[in-house]
Amino acid sequence: MGEEIEIVNYLFRRLHQLGIRSVHGVPGDFNLVALDYLEPAGLHWVGNCSELNAGYAADGYARINGMSAIITTFGVGELSAVPAIAGSYSERVSVVHIVGIPSAKAKKHGVPVHHSFADGDYSVFRNISKNISQASIILDDSKNAAKDIDSVLQGLPTDMVLSMIPAQGLNTPLDLAVSPNDPNAEANAVELISKALYESNNAIVLVDGGAIRYRALKETQEFVDRSQLPIFATSMGRGAINEADPNFKGVYIGDVSGPEIQQAVQSADLVFSIGAVDCDFNSGGFTNRTETKHTIELHPNYTKVGYATYANVGMKLLLQKLLDVVDFQKVHSPQDALARTNVLQRLSDEAESPEYTSQEISQKWLWSNIGDWLQEGDVVIADVGTSSFGIMSTRFPKGVTCITQVLWGSIGFSVGSCQGAALAVVESDQPSRRVILFVGDGSFQLTGTEVSTMIRHGLKPIIVLINNDGYTTERIAHGPEMGYNDIQPWKYRKFLKAFGANKGEYKNFAIKTKSQFKSLFKQGTEFSKANVIQLVDLYTARMDAPIGLTDTWRKVSEFHAKL
Amino acid sequence: MGEEIEIVNYLFRRLHQLGIRSVHGVPGDFNLVALDYLEPAGLHWVGNCSELNAGYAADGYARINGMSAIITTFGVGELSAVPAIAGSYSERVSVVHIVGIPSAKAKKHGVPVHHSFADGDYSVFRNISKNISQASIILDDSKNAAKDIDSVLQGLPTDMVLSMIPAQGLNTPLDLAVSPNDPNAEANAVELISKALYESNNAIVLVDGGAIRYRALKETQEFVDRSQLPIFATSMGRGAINEADPNFKGVYIGDVSGPEIQQAVQSADLVFSIGAVDCDFNSGGFTNRTETKHTIELHPNYTKVGYATYANVGMKLLLQKLLDVVDFQKVHSPQDALARTNVLQRLSDEAESPEYTSQEISQKWLWSNIGDWLQEGDVVIADVGTSSFGIMSTRFPKGVTCITQVLWGSIGFSVGSCQGAALAVVESDQPSRRVILFVGDGSFQLTGTEVSTMIRHGLKPIIVLINNDGYTTERIAHGPEMGYNDIQPWKYRKFLKAFGANKGEYKNFAIKTKSQFKSLFKQGTEFSKANVIQLVDLYTARMDAPIGLTDTWRKVSEFHAKL
Repeated sequence: MGEEIEIVNYLFRRLHQLGIRSVHGVPGDFNLVALDYLEPAGLHWVGNCSELNAGYAADGYARINGMSAIITTFGVGELSAVPAIAGSYSERVSVVHIVGIPSAKAKKHGVPVHHSFADGDYSVFRNISKNISQASIILDDSKNAAKDIDSVLQGLPTDMVLSMIPAQGLNTPLDLAVSPNDPNAEANAVELISKALYESNNAIVLVDGGAIRYRALKETQEFVDRSQLPIFATSMGRGAINEADPNFKGVYIGDVSGPEIQQAVQSADLVFSIGAVDCDFNSGGFTNRTETKHTIELHPNYTKVGYATYANVGMKLLLQKLLDVVDFQKVHSPQDALARTNVLQRLSDEAESPEYTSQEISQKWLWSNIGDWLQEGDVVIADVGTSSFGIMSTRFPKGVTCITQVLWGSIGFSVGSCQGAALAVVESDQPSRRVILFVGDGSFQLTGTEVSTMIRHGLKPIIVLINNDGYTTERIAHGPEMGYNDIQPWKYRKFLKAFGANKGEYKNFAIKTKSQFKSLFKQGTEFSKANVIQLVDLYTARMDAPIGLTDTWRKVSEFHAKL
Repeated sequence: MGEEIEIVNYLFRRLHQLGIRSVHGVPGDFNLVALDYLEPAGLHWVGNCSELNAGYAADGYARINGMSAIITTFGVGELSAVPAIAGSYSERVSVVHIVGIPSAKAKKHGVPVHHSFADGDYSVFRNISKNISQASIILDDSKNAAKDIDSVLQGLPTDMVLSMIPAQGLNTPLDLAVSPNDPNAEANAVELISKALYESNNAIVLVDGGAIRYRALKETQEFVDRSQLPIFATSMGRGAINEADPNFKGVYIGDVSGPEIQQAVQSADLVFSIGAVDCDFNSGGFTNRTETKHTIELHPNYTKVGYATYANVGMKLLLQKLLDVVDFQKVHSPQDALARTNVLQRLSDEAESPEYTSQEISQKWLWSNIGDWLQEGDVVIADVGTSSFGIMSTRFPKGVTCITQVLWGSIGFSVGSCQGAALAVVESDQPSRRVILFVGDGSFQLTGTEVSTMIRHGLKPIIVLINNDGYTTERIAHGPEMGYNDIQPWKYRKFLKAFGANKGEYKNFAIKTKSQFKSLFKQGTEFSKANVIQLVDLYTARMDAPIGLTDTWRKVSEFHAKL
């Protein structure tokens, strides 16, 4: 690296060093000059249809790639991305939001520029962003810009974009390793945890969203492999570990889980919980029950053993230590027969009962049958609603990544997310992984335009559109027949062409019966090879919802009624 | 009214009393119960494709109707509407944003509900909204709810929706009249203003956006009619007064205006300015020049006469007083020959010069020829970009309402706005006014889905889509050939059908030449009657932009370079 470099160049080269290859966003007058520096820094510009979509796409890209970046313009653009950025913050996904803002001089003079309230106050949008960001900074000081960029990235005034700053920082890669644990606290925790593991007869591992977000998946998998303890996933923990492993026993969502799963988790004499996220939709309306005194909780920067909390003992390094120290010969794998059954299997069996033999595709039938068609390494994205609740009863082969928004729950996020995830897959070392999106018709109407960006970049996801004539999830919650839960019926199979897909480069399918489903969703077919972008317009009944959804609504209402 | 009424019922009946008939928004679990009370209160639910679109639609509805309301759900929904609500705040449009939020009990206990950051903090979204609202309140106190609603409306916890409150307040209509002026200050101002008017030989009236937003149009028109002073409009003041009136002399945007207009305004010995909004795009990059000592400025709650400011003297009542007091016989209408020419006419003439005789439709030709086709009472909506800058050189017949976002400038706002405005027109006492939308292809990609809501409600705007292969406005600003200014080419004429319009209930047109344009845009044709929803896919060259746009970019850069 030379001695001096433009601020924007420094920033983009840092993003490249951090593994980002494509940047999402929408151009705007306050960011145009900056965009010129993307390609020279080895970054590819995506160019989304809207900033909200771009935000969701960046979130999806980060969930595959580890980190992503989005560029928007002052006021109008940055605010449009806010709900998506807030979602990434809520769901603990690493997204860098870079906003092109008016010049530092304009700010100093309080110039009433467009995209503002013409009151000379330039701080309002940054104040909004602070509420939904881990950290934020305005790069208006060239002396400290390199340091500031390296600590946190946001807010790039137009007149600072090309200011020259020392380039030397780029010679030292940023250290993204987690902070070391407090050695004494860790040693104490390891001792207690080992003892608890040796003494238990019926321990289980419960893996949650934090294990994914804080990148402790390798350690978690090794812990299960060596201990042979049965493992359960929460909704947010889906896809965290190899679910084809016989040790995987099912999805635990409190009282919304199957009775065998509830029994297995709640009768455990030790729950080894990794990355728990406490929220209503992740816990069947807070009906998850694990006794504190029998629970070990691993979090990103602290650990709980029973009632004791160990500050500065984070999950990733603690797991590495446990893998070193624990004598896994002395850990008993549980004897409970139910826990040894693959209980997810039993849920699927139930779906084949006579009440579902009609040709109409029920939600229950759909989500278990999809499991038979999924392949190793698939990326599965499920929008909020029947898709996100339905996918909880779908069995995943090994290496499936599952993208949902259990906590933030913003309908429509999945279409943007699918674009970002599909792009990250293409750029990864496993570019042939399939990307499969499940999205309801109501959700699709919010962000469906991003299918256009998929076409533009030659991405080839399979989009399964659950066509059930409106907001079914909300019909279940309230007002099943009310007009406000209706939507305008679109002709969904017309959009790939309308968005500019060329003949031969896209396919549409209408699926209304089980036979049609079974002949399309078959291993090894052209469809399953996913060589072009494909949309499956799949019809289910208006009031049919996965049992996980109806039960969760019920449990959540019961919880609130008792407050 | 009975003695007690549900909070939500009180709120909705108040909205109805204020003249709102349709409410925009998207249903969500925290607002569903509230929605049940819309129809009984005489309010119609629109149901938009997304909250952002709903926000823009509410803005458009309010610009026709005076006020509007939007309902969203906690977190995900309310944040999605933020850029549109911020736009209404910036452009001074009255929109009531009602957010369904978790119960007051859940808040008290800090329950980690979905649509939150699971940190028990329920205040973050309201803090965001406060930055972009005139006023906000959480209706969590049934004792004061009626009073709170009457002062300001926002934030409705699910458990308070049905709390009973006294209904008696509804018997007294809300008083929306402006506050009375300070009588002494007003008397003093009136004396000075009268004197200035009598003494001037060359006064002009300059009408800006504030005259529209603060509802002083009737008074402004009467002032011009009686004084016979020449009147100019700024960009934000378009459509404020009758532009077919011979006293209307053109659009003044500083150095971006035609030279005759600049000369007329800048040589005036008195500028009577009504509702000025100071911002870059409203002033040709701050090149508007009216000398303070020769300027009288009327604002919503203060008045300036030369260098003197009169607090608490608002424009509407001051104008009424002036109409009472001023002896208009003593006001000289100016003798300046240029000012008496209709200078807007000259700009249009110029468009017919030989350089534009090719069959290709130039922006210059387009915007002047559109003027010949417009009818009395049309509602014209122009998106940000070639449309908003182009429409500035279009002559308007009497009674045209022009909707643009000169200050906020959020591309894509116009499609939502068109839906809201078209609905407000249908509900108004002039339901046959045509609604005509001009929107570029890039802008359309952000919010075009809202065309679906127009179809759903049987609205029949004429949508003129300026198809120029990308973000032309941004190509002019920077990077004409850069990929980031490209967009995915959509097949725009496929969308009306894809969004579910029935055969015979929609029409598409492709317009590539002047002859095609002239045979379509003709008075009295089926097309011009606007009996069905129609989309005109109108092609212009990639780098062609109205002179107002290129000049404004240039002037704005010059301004910033000199800071």
